[in-house]
Amino acid sequence: MQKLEKLLERVIRRVNINLRGQDFDVGPFLSPCVPLRKLSRFYAFYGVTGRHPLHFHFSASNLAGSYFLGKCRVDGSVLYKSDIRGDELRAKGDDFHFRGIRMTLDQDEIISISDSLLVKTLVHNRSHDPENPEIFLVKNSAACPFANIHGSPLEGSFLGAFATVDLTTLHGCIVGPFAYVQAGELWHDRVEPGQIWVNQEGAFDFRYRFPAETLAEYIRVEPGRPPAGRFMEFLNARKEDFHRVFDVVHLAPIRSVPKTASLSRYAVIKPKTRIGANVLVSQRAFIENSSIGKGSNAQENCFIINSHLEGNDVTAHGAKLIHTRLAEKVFVGFNSFIHGLPDAPLVVGPGSIIMPHTIIDLKEPVSIPPNHLVWGFVSTPEDLRDHSIPLATLADSTRMTTVGTMEFTGSGARFVAAFQNRIDHILESNGAYFDGRKKRGHAQKGQNIAYNIIQPYPIGAQKGIYPTIDIQP
Amino acid sequence: MQKLEKLLERVIRRVNINLRGQDFDVGPFLSPCVPLRKLSRFYAFYGVTGRHPLHFHFSASNLAGSYFLGKCRVDGSVLYKSDIRGDELRAKGDDFHFRGIRMTLDQDEIISISDSLLVKTLVHNRSHDPENPEIFLVKNSAACPFANIHGSPLEGSFLGAFATVDLTTLHGCIVGPFAYVQAGELWHDRVEPGQIWVNQEGAFDFRYRFPAETLAEYIRVEPGRPPAGRFMEFLNARKEDFHRVFDVVHLAPIRSVPKTASLSRYAVIKPKTRIGANVLVSQRAFIENSSIGKGSNAQENCFIINSHLEGNDVTAHGAKLIHTRLAEKVFVGFNSFIHGLPDAPLVVGPGSIIMPHTIIDLKEPVSIPPNHLVWGFVSTPEDLRDHSIPLATLADSTRMTTVGTMEFTGSGARFVAAFQNRIDHILESNGAYFDGRKKRGHAQKGQNIAYNIIQPYPIGAQKGIYPTIDIQP
Repeated sequence: MQKLEKLLERVIRRVNINLRGQDFDVGPFLSPCVPLRKLSRFYAFYGVTGRHPLHFHFSASNLAGSYFLGKCRVDGSVLYKSDIRGDELRAKGDDFHFRGIRMTLDQDEIISISDSLLVKTLVHNRSHDPENPEIFLVKNSAACPFANIHGSPLEGSFLGAFATVDLTTLHGCIVGPFAYVQAGELWHDRVEPGQIWVNQEGAFDFRYRFPAETLAEYIRVEPGRPPAGRFMEFLNARKEDFHRVFDVVHLAPIRSVPKTASLSRYAVIKPKTRIGANVLVSQRAFIENSSIGKGSNAQENCFIINSHLEGNDVTAHGAKLIHTRLAEKVFVGFNSFIHGLPDAPLVVGPGSIIMPHTIIDLKEPVSIPPNHLVWGFVSTPEDLRDHSIPLATLADSTRMTTVGTMEFTGSGARFVAAFQNRIDHILESNGAYFDGRKKRGHAQKGQNIAYNIIQPYPIGAQKGIYPTIDIQP
Repeated sequence: MQKLEKLLERVIRRVNINLRGQDFDVGPFLSPCVPLRKLSRFYAFYGVTGRHPLHFHFSASNLAGSYFLGKCRVDGSVLYKSDIRGDELRAKGDDFHFRGIRMTLDQDEIISISDSLLVKTLVHNRSHDPENPEIFLVKNSAACPFANIHGSPLEGSFLGAFATVDLTTLHGCIVGPFAYVQAGELWHDRVEPGQIWVNQEGAFDFRYRFPAETLAEYIRVEPGRPPAGRFMEFLNARKEDFHRVFDVVHLAPIRSVPKTASLSRYAVIKPKTRIGANVLVSQRAFIENSSIGKGSNAQENCFIINSHLEGNDVTAHGAKLIHTRLAEKVFVGFNSFIHGLPDAPLVVGPGSIIMPHTIIDLKEPVSIPPNHLVWGFVSTPEDLRDHSIPLATLADSTRMTTVGTMEFTGSGARFVAAFQNRIDHILESNGAYFDGRKKRGHAQKGQNIAYNIIQPYPIGAQKGIYPTIDIQP
């Protein structure tokens, strides 16, 4: 075990050096989430599809329980139960636009993770750093369980549990638990726990912060302890269900899944579930007694239970839906926790957008009208009033709008348009609009993934370290 | 499928070109044994131990169902359900003696398989070619199901079903079904079906050939058809039992296996089986209702059913024991088929040697006395008389001895000594003599193998071809 322990220490030290200006020690937040025994016992796996550019390179790392797709390399890192999904990376020859400048990539983009420690973290999308379009870099960084690194290159940064960095380059930043940030680029900044912040320079700024006592109920983080609260209780209660899908090499495909849908064999699907055409269900998603309508998706770490998705609904990475009915084209953002009542499911009207990191946990029946934006914490109809706005009203806002403690400044029209474009882009990428010939997306491309299983050294000083492995076409 | 089909054709053509002098087409013998659909569906696996030098390199190949351990590379080949066991390769710095000349290896030995087609074939031991001690080469060659390539570099050669090449370098040779050859080096030679031939230049020569009608009952080979006969019937009847062990990633270890024994999780162990200390059971071995005494082993494709192994018994690759009781230190050679009677098990006395490729299939009760050599076909006590000799008698032979149709010439003493040394070497390599501290062998080194699973491209023109993969320490 010596080498693995040294690797962990070394990575933690490297991240701390990058955060020295903020006098922050990542060790006490990460160590309780990294079970050494499991690190040397769990396998890692990577997908070979024939449809994505292929290159994996792993060296001097532990990859226990992690999954890799597309081009990626990992060096001197510990990735525990993380998903490194390179299926939206740019390919050689792709154009890249940034503020009117067009660049053409002369090599395939690759996710490169080095000297980092990621626990149950999702890495997806592509580098949104215009300076480095060919490399989606995560370096000298650490992420706690259920963080999302989405299109966000990181250097020397730390993400707390359930934090999401979205389309944002971070240098020496600390993102608190359950904070969501989409702000282009940040240097030596700190995003407070439960802070939801969307900023586009010169265009708009959206801010909301969860009250400390609400946050504490759902996600509590203390140094030296693993994250606690309702999110963790919810997840831990369903952990066992994943054992079977990880223990078996080949699982018999589930019947009555349309040919245009793709359902990862590393997802848990429980009765009675109905899967529509063009649906994408990613590895580590969990579906129970739900109907997933045409073109909808459930990404990594999504849980959809006793719910109905009408069609073209997006359930972003880590979102959970329980007793919920989504009408057509509803967006539920990263790590949202949406829990209706058993006898009065939450109903969400068509076209509505549930912001990333929204908690809707009903005490009384609530319906979200069509085309609304919802954020923050909602448990009653009164809460909804303080945490929602019709998209049309927001689009009319040109300077400043506040609802409850949410503050919006800038162009509401651009904010709404940016969101709606993005939802369309997500649906397109996922293959929601596949017509049998064109508009193929993840749901269609991910149908024939061959899963490869790699293991660390089982004994000796190298125990837990994976051999150096290089896979090319 | 295009590329895989082309690969198969190309390999067959390459082998045929090497055998053009003998006007032999390997295609009709191999093609019926290569189910294209399974080639693109079955995974391959390799072991990482921390105790063996590590380097795997696979390119432009199909490896369906095959297993790799130790250093090996495979290029432009099809290996179907084969075992490439590099755990007896020489390591850098090892001395190599050949007729008084000592050489020191300045790099680790590697098994290199290129442009070859191996079906259910075992490759084991190390190169016995003194000209190439650092590379155990199998090139432009093809092997039919249940062939053994043991310490035998091959170039442009063909092995029929159940054939064994042992410590022999072959160039452009054809070895018939169920033939066994141990003859140093052969060029453009042909070993007839059922021929058993052990030759050490200037020392001894042992020859026996199975009568055609006996052979036909056990192993029939016709071009355009898969092998048939009792061997195949026996194996096919037990095929299903292997599905479970290959379908699951981690199998719970079987209890009451001594700490010094190693039992591959890819072996089938059925009740009631007792495993003693220092026992080695390899992948694809099958044990049922048997007792495997201290220091005994069951290698790849061995079946031990309703049998008792007293201790330090060697069951070489592919040997089958049914209703058999082996006393201490009995050797059962490659691919032997030993079948006692349910109510009168075959008893083999201590120190006896059952030659490779021996068929003992009893119609009447038979006992093999201690310290005898047995070969050929035995079903009655009369058969035994014609197919056995006391080792002491053989050791006294200095010129020529015939028993039945067996012809022995040369030094019986050297023949017996060579065999006994080898058995000791096998027991030592397998860890039979491990005392808790010293004399560690496969049984102890193979206890903590981490199995890695690799898969071919699942779709497209590359379907069935494995991506290029390189694994280093």
